[in-house]
Amino acid sequence: MFERILEVRNKVAQQSELRRLLKDCRKLLGERGEANSAVIAARVLEHYGKLSDETSSGFFEMLAAEFDPDPGRLVELALSYQATRSPHDLVKLFHAVESPRQELLRRLNRAHGATAAIVAMRARLLERLRSDPVLVAVDDDFSHLLSSWFNPGFLRLVQVDWSSPALLLEKLVMHEAVHQIDGWKDLRRRLEPDRRCFAFFHPTLPDEPLIFVEVALVPEIPAGIGPLIDRDAATVDDERSFKVAVFYSISNCQAGLRGVNLGNFLIKQVAQELHRQIPGIKTFCTLSPIPGFARWLAKLEQIESAELKPAAARRLNDALGGLRSRYGNDPAKWVRATPPAAVPAEIVEESDDPDEQRRIRREQKALERQEKAQQKARQARLEEDNDALSRLCAFYLCNLGSGEINGSDPVARFHLNNGARLERINPRADLSRKGRTESCGFMVNYLYDLDEVEENHEKFVAGEVRASRAVRALL
Amino acid sequence: MFERILEVRNKVAQQSELRRLLKDCRKLLGERGEANSAVIAARVLEHYGKLSDETSSGFFEMLAAEFDPDPGRLVELALSYQATRSPHDLVKLFHAVESPRQELLRRLNRAHGATAAIVAMRARLLERLRSDPVLVAVDDDFSHLLSSWFNPGFLRLVQVDWSSPALLLEKLVMHEAVHQIDGWKDLRRRLEPDRRCFAFFHPTLPDEPLIFVEVALVPEIPAGIGPLIDRDAATVDDERSFKVAVFYSISNCQAGLRGVNLGNFLIKQVAQELHRQIPGIKTFCTLSPIPGFARWLAKLEQIESAELKPAAARRLNDALGGLRSRYGNDPAKWVRATPPAAVPAEIVEESDDPDEQRRIRREQKALERQEKAQQKARQARLEEDNDALSRLCAFYLCNLGSGEINGSDPVARFHLNNGARLERINPRADLSRKGRTESCGFMVNYLYDLDEVEENHEKFVAGEVRASRAVRALL
Amino acid sequence: MFERILEVRNKVAQQSELRRLLKDCRKLLGERGEANSAVIAARVLEHYGKLSDETSSGFFEMLAAEFDPDPGRLVELALSYQATRSPHDLVKLFHAVESPRQELLRRLNRAHGATAAIVAMRARLLERLRSDPVLVAVDDDFSHLLSSWFNPGFLRLVQVDWSSPALLLEKLVMHEAVHQIDGWKDLRRRLEPDRRCFAFFHPTLPDEPLIFVEVALVPEIPAGIGPLIDRDAATVDDERSFKVAVFYSISNCQAGLRGVNLGNFLIKQVAQELHRQIPGIKTFCTLSPIPGFARWLAKLEQIESAELKPAAARRLNDALGGLRSRYGNDPAKWVRATPPAAVPAEIVEESDDPDEQRRIRREQKALERQEKAQQKARQARLEEDNDALSRLCAFYLCNLGSGEINGSDPVARFHLNNGARLERINPRADLSRKGRTESCGFMVNYLYDLDEVEENHEKFVAGEVRASRAVRALL
Amino acid sequence: MFERILEVRNKVAQQSELRRLLKDCRKLLGERGEANSAVIAARVLEHYGKLSDETSSGFFEMLAAEFDPDPGRLVELALSYQATRSPHDLVKLFHAVESPRQELLRRLNRAHGATAAIVAMRARLLERLRSDPVLVAVDDDFSHLLSSWFNPGFLRLVQVDWSSPALLLEKLVMHEAVHQIDGWKDLRRRLEPDRRCFAFFHPTLPDEPLIFVEVALVPEIPAGIGPLIDRDAATVDDERSFKVAVFYSISNCQAGLRGVNLGNFLIKQVAQELHRQIPGIKTFCTLSPIPGFARWLAKLEQIESAELKPAAARRLNDALGGLRSRYGNDPAKWVRATPPAAVPAEIVEESDDPDEQRRIRREQKALERQEKAQQKARQARLEEDNDALSRLCAFYLCNLGSGEINGSDPVARFHLNNGARLERINPRADLSRKGRTESCGFMVNYLYDLDEVEENHEKFVAGEVRASRAVRALL
Repeated sequence: MFERILEVRNKVAQQSELRRLLKDCRKLLGERGEANSAVIAARVLEHYGKLSDETSSGFFEMLAAEFDPDPGRLVELALSYQATRSPHDLVKLFHAVESPRQELLRRLNRAHGATAAIVAMRARLLERLRSDPVLVAVDDDFSHLLSSWFNPGFLRLVQVDWSSPALLLEKLVMHEAVHQIDGWKDLRRRLEPDRRCFAFFHPTLPDEPLIFVEVALVPEIPAGIGPLIDRDAATVDDERSFKVAVFYSISNCQAGLRGVNLGNFLIKQVAQELHRQIPGIKTFCTLSPIPGFARWLAKLEQIESAELKPAAARRLNDALGGLRSRYGNDPAKWVRATPPAAVPAEIVEESDDPDEQRRIRREQKALERQEKAQQKARQARLEEDNDALSRLCAFYLCNLGSGEINGSDPVARFHLNNGARLERINPRADLSRKGRTESCGFMVNYLYDLDEVEENHEKFVAGEVRASRAVRALL
Repeated sequence: MFERILEVRNKVAQQSELRRLLKDCRKLLGERGEANSAVIAARVLEHYGKLSDETSSGFFEMLAAEFDPDPGRLVELALSYQATRSPHDLVKLFHAVESPRQELLRRLNRAHGATAAIVAMRARLLERLRSDPVLVAVDDDFSHLLSSWFNPGFLRLVQVDWSSPALLLEKLVMHEAVHQIDGWKDLRRRLEPDRRCFAFFHPTLPDEPLIFVEVALVPEIPAGIGPLIDRDAATVDDERSFKVAVFYSISNCQAGLRGVNLGNFLIKQVAQELHRQIPGIKTFCTLSPIPGFARWLAKLEQIESAELKPAAARRLNDALGGLRSRYGNDPAKWVRATPPAAVPAEIVEESDDPDEQRRIRREQKALERQEKAQQKARQARLEEDNDALSRLCAFYLCNLGSGEINGSDPVARFHLNNGARLERINPRADLSRKGRTESCGFMVNYLYDLDEVEENHEKFVAGEVRASRAVRALL
Repeated sequence: MFERILEVRNKVAQQSELRRLLKDCRKLLGERGEANSAVIAARVLEHYGKLSDETSSGFFEMLAAEFDPDPGRLVELALSYQATRSPHDLVKLFHAVESPRQELLRRLNRAHGATAAIVAMRARLLERLRSDPVLVAVDDDFSHLLSSWFNPGFLRLVQVDWSSPALLLEKLVMHEAVHQIDGWKDLRRRLEPDRRCFAFFHPTLPDEPLIFVEVALVPEIPAGIGPLIDRDAATVDDERSFKVAVFYSISNCQAGLRGVNLGNFLIKQVAQELHRQIPGIKTFCTLSPIPGFARWLAKLEQIESAELKPAAARRLNDALGGLRSRYGNDPAKWVRATPPAAVPAEIVEESDDPDEQRRIRREQKALERQEKAQQKARQARLEEDNDALSRLCAFYLCNLGSGEINGSDPVARFHLNNGARLERINPRADLSRKGRTESCGFMVNYLYDLDEVEENHEKFVAGEVRASRAVRALL
Repeated sequence: MFERILEVRNKVAQQSELRRLLKDCRKLLGERGEANSAVIAARVLEHYGKLSDETSSGFFEMLAAEFDPDPGRLVELALSYQATRSPHDLVKLFHAVESPRQELLRRLNRAHGATAAIVAMRARLLERLRSDPVLVAVDDDFSHLLSSWFNPGFLRLVQVDWSSPALLLEKLVMHEAVHQIDGWKDLRRRLEPDRRCFAFFHPTLPDEPLIFVEVALVPEIPAGIGPLIDRDAATVDDERSFKVAVFYSISNCQAGLRGVNLGNFLIKQVAQELHRQIPGIKTFCTLSPIPGFARWLAKLEQIESAELKPAAARRLNDALGGLRSRYGNDPAKWVRATPPAAVPAEIVEESDDPDEQRRIRREQKALERQEKAQQKARQARLEEDNDALSRLCAFYLCNLGSGEINGSDPVARFHLNNGARLERINPRADLSRKGRTESCGFMVNYLYDLDEVEENHEKFVAGEVRASRAVRALL
């Protein structure tokens, strides 16, 4: 560390922009900052804004090198607190250990427009962090403060619709990360009365959505994504037919807020709001991809699990073996885009001779019988494949909580950790290229029952995934 | 401390309300809290709201006893950080030392309306703190978080006028702490075009002003408070005559935000806003009481100061002695409410005899001469007294920064610490009972020159008070 | 008329302000007005605003003299239309007969802030109209246009409460014409949750309420005004107890809008809005004074009515005679403010002699019996008087529609013409000085049943007053 | 007419929808309407909204047949007014001649949302009017009332930008009639900082723009439309470079408001607003097509004009003849899209023999000289053509006011009638197909100088077109 600090100091000394920034940062933390912080903070942000990408990484290194607390003093205060357990000593220790960086960021935040600037600063920092792990304490300070400032209690839930500013709608198009919005016509369909969109805003960033969720209002839990994002689907106006709210897409808009948990609150607040607007809606679920599924399948040797009865394990391994032997090793090929329907062959031969006509009819019949049998076989195979994959998928998702699964699924983790229940596994639900490659065409409904989220979450943390009876039956 | 903790635990065990609150607080900090924090937080706040005053003090003791960090672990982590100086170890130490109370408060803040509830909680805590110093670490956590949440960057400056909601205006009447507002007529006068009022609001407390300042727009720096708060004074409509903005009253509205420095930012932001609205206004000053002046004078033995030349010290001590010998020991009596003007006596005797008439005229003249002389003497005495008190006042204020003064003046400290300059000392500026009793009738103008506040503040912290030449000339 | 016109022209010629105004009005109506009307209109309004009261009456006379249509041309066009009945001829006639004044006012209205100015102009005009009937056609033009512009479809219903701007609340205090608002405390009570206030606004006069109504939400139809306007009455917060909405005061704020019927729409729209807010409220009624009642009684000789059976007529005339003989000719004295309760006399004599004690007790008893009898008699007389007056009141109100009543009651006319039903007559309902002098202490509930207002109104116009069975039983 | 009325009555009697509407209309005008008009009006509008296109034309015929005033009574009242000239008689006549239809429309307007419905009704009526002139009086009543209700004084000027609701922006795309908006990218370019857009709104139609104007802010008066509507043009951010505001497109959005003059006010109010926002902008002009120019040229025989000197007339006729002889009779072909630039030919022959090389160079030079000469000739011809067409265009526009021109130009009439001046004639300014076909590629700048619009308008009405010296020099 010491060499690193010297190296950074050398860098700062050589670059006049960094020298100036360091001086102003010290001023902001010092006495002058107390009297005139908004002005100095604005100056720091202005100068920071002019840094090149490379020099800005020097700035973060400077934050790491120059604004750490003094270790010797920390030890001394910790010992003193241990001895006295006096609250005064605790207060002293707390103020000493909270690195000066945090106070620096809080004072920076006094300038007009500073919160947006600090969020953008963090986005840049996160990029640097990938290659320079020494910035981890700096990032922890950013993360800590942003979590406090973007506390859900401070956020405003906004319903986005076709009356919203174009400026805002444009940002949805830009940030939608799950099911891309293909132009204004597509967007407009997603804001019709049977679709809803909600976003969180922070009071100091009035034009910047932080995160948004798209919802479809439908009569029952959907088994496939197609109809939900079909821009030509007819709009349903009758509120009485809405029974289920489906969160089919949730997207973050601010790279600088990574790790600040907003999605959990958004989903629950939107559920309450929708229930208030349309009391007939009582079911809240998602229709989500399983982005880690195909990757896990590809790497899977054999299923062994203490939790599983031997018979069940054998069934799963057989299913796996069957798929591999039939379609090869790439799980993306285990789900085929072609639907099983087929046109029966027809004999075009004609004749005036009654005998011949009879023969033709007979052969025609035979062909049709044969075609029907093949069709039936294809359908059976498809169902068998679906069933095999469904079982594997159920095993994958149900064992995410424990250590059984090598490989993770961020979407499943997000919803299960929020306290949702694994409700239904839907084969052939998303046959887009991405859907087949990552999720073998599968999608899953996570169900949010607000009365059980506490318990579900607690169990998930303890390693258990709550699943519906139907899902459990697959194992 | 240990006995105290056992005592508190005993108390909690006996009271079912506290037991329930403790359980929910632990839940909120634990895994369940992660999934459903807004709901649990709302429950905690609801139950807290129902506590009696006495039980609520048990709640704060519980926060002190149960949510402190573990000293042994702190020592261990501090030693480890000292050894490695690794950022990862620093992060660990930081998260360990930040008492769980802070995280508890942050999670409480996720409930709807929580920020207002936490501010109210702090107000109650501050009352308890006076009699129970063990709560100091608890209060430090509240104070730390509220400072971060009520960061000036998050506040909204609102101009209050006669179009503002009655609900808000009523709160100004209630909270005005400097020059009481006597009913709606008085209030209305203070919102006419030659008066202004600005308040800070936080986005989550839309109906609650945090702090407000009242401003008079006048042609020159005022020497007395009377005309500024005279509700029958004619309104000046012509913006071109406004050259000086006088901050004549600044009041906090939220007891729970004590120690969160808002006034400093409010004054500076209002100065900028007024200059924007009316570019002709270039001078920003206060007209402030000196609430510690009379108390200091009463306790004063003799002025001795290393800073003062012996001749100046002698002059001040003579002034002090003179006032005491003339009016006794109570400084409130050193300023007399009666103005020096007097009606000359008149001889009512009449006569027809020309000689008599001449005599009467002569005697009348003599009487008038005598009266004039007395009047002149009274005026001279008054000026002498003013002068004596002004010198003492200048000494008092100029030495607040150093250790010379036993006794403090919160108003002077506030403005000088904000970087204002001591501009002018005004005798007989507030002859109200309160003005005479606390400030010997004196008021002072602190001048805010935004270009020099940084330097002034820095000097003040170093013990030096910046004063105008006129004030310095008094020493 | 011709002499009058010459006289006015002479006046205009002599006064330069009027000459200038006339010139600009002609310009506004002419070609230049077409291209630049907003500017010329603003000039006219500015110059008009500077006229003295006297000169402004010259302005209205000028409008009467100079902007009438040409009679000869009207006759010619009317004859032509009669001959052809062609729509083109009708259009020509219409444009000719619509006096140029209307076009002038429409063009004036193009200036910024013109609508408010025109409303104020009309208020001045109405004052002049009292002494100068020649202005009647001018006023008809104002009235016609203002009715069109202040069409209820253009108005905005606003709920006024304690969050409303002080500026607006102040205007309510100023304009409340029925039950005076005595300061801000009184006003605040009238805006608590069991009271409501609604006002109509026009988009171009955003700070000026046009008319407002005050409503009390109560469990049943009230029989007296006291509790409704008692500023110390406890507030009822529980919405479930609200069954009846009582319109207890309705006040116009704009003198210039006299004759533009807003109250009718306001009451009906507020009834709908309240029913929407609190579906439990199903009864909408007033508690109204009967300002013409005492005046009518004073002038009344004897009741004769073709509608009345001889026995009923006799009863009414007996009641009238009885009141007159008991209390004299002034109906204001027929209702006495003193309630009938009285303190029984007590014998203070004491004695040690048992016989004497018995005697005293006996006499005391006798006295109490006597007092009770007198009290009973007083109560009976009071009820008899109430009954007599109630009958007379019922006769008065039920015959307002026909020609029977000499004397009018604007409040009754307003509500009956709006289609309300006469629901209940309340004696001793308003014992204030004004209440006794004008209404003999009576108040009446008019009931708005939205399903029957059309029919009720139609009957009222035909001379019949719809009354409840209880009211009819009084006849 | 009588037969027509009988015919309409017959139609109404046969159609139950029309019978019901007629009954409700009569009710609305009658006594019941007075008490409950908003409810009845809503019913009429609801039933009207359900009429088929054909039946709705029956509705308008019914308005024509049943709600005309009585001719006999009009004659009687006109004669009476002629005799007395009493204002009371004038009032009577006015109320009689104003057809009951107007009162009907005013009462219809009391329903919620009625204004929008009445505007839509008028749009339908205007379509019918083309084939049924008997509706002209009905339309006059609509037009009269809508002009009064959509008085500029009631309208709100709104600046439209990228923060405006998508709902509104979509309507701009739909209604832009001059230079079509090609999708959201094109729209966005037109809302960048160097472009502005303003619309008028009526308070009762908050989501419906009535008319809007698009403005380009540029350094000087533009000579061609290309750069103004180029969606890829770089945005100019620097306000200091904006000197001229160009109204390059103005579009009505409401067919039902035809004849209600809004554009005139919009342009003038926008000019004031822009000057307020950016005081450096002092010139306000248009860049407008001349849609009648080519049509006039095609029909033109020969120019003869009393105003023109013979020499000038001869020059114009020569120009006309030249163009016809060169390019034929279709004026759209008189402007050629090909620009005059051309690539000089190059001799590709090569040789090693120095003599040959010399020859080749010589011939190459000769070819280039020849090409340059041809190019010069083409350029001269182009300028000659421009000049010829410019002269004709100047004559066309300058004589629009008088009776000289057979054929009209609505755009020129609009701006000249608003008081604009004909500032500059730009050849080859719009080479789009439409621009060549209608305007021979010409565009014209009309200049709005607010100080001279009154006078210019007045002159235009008298037959004179105000033109700049440069334009007059073309004649």
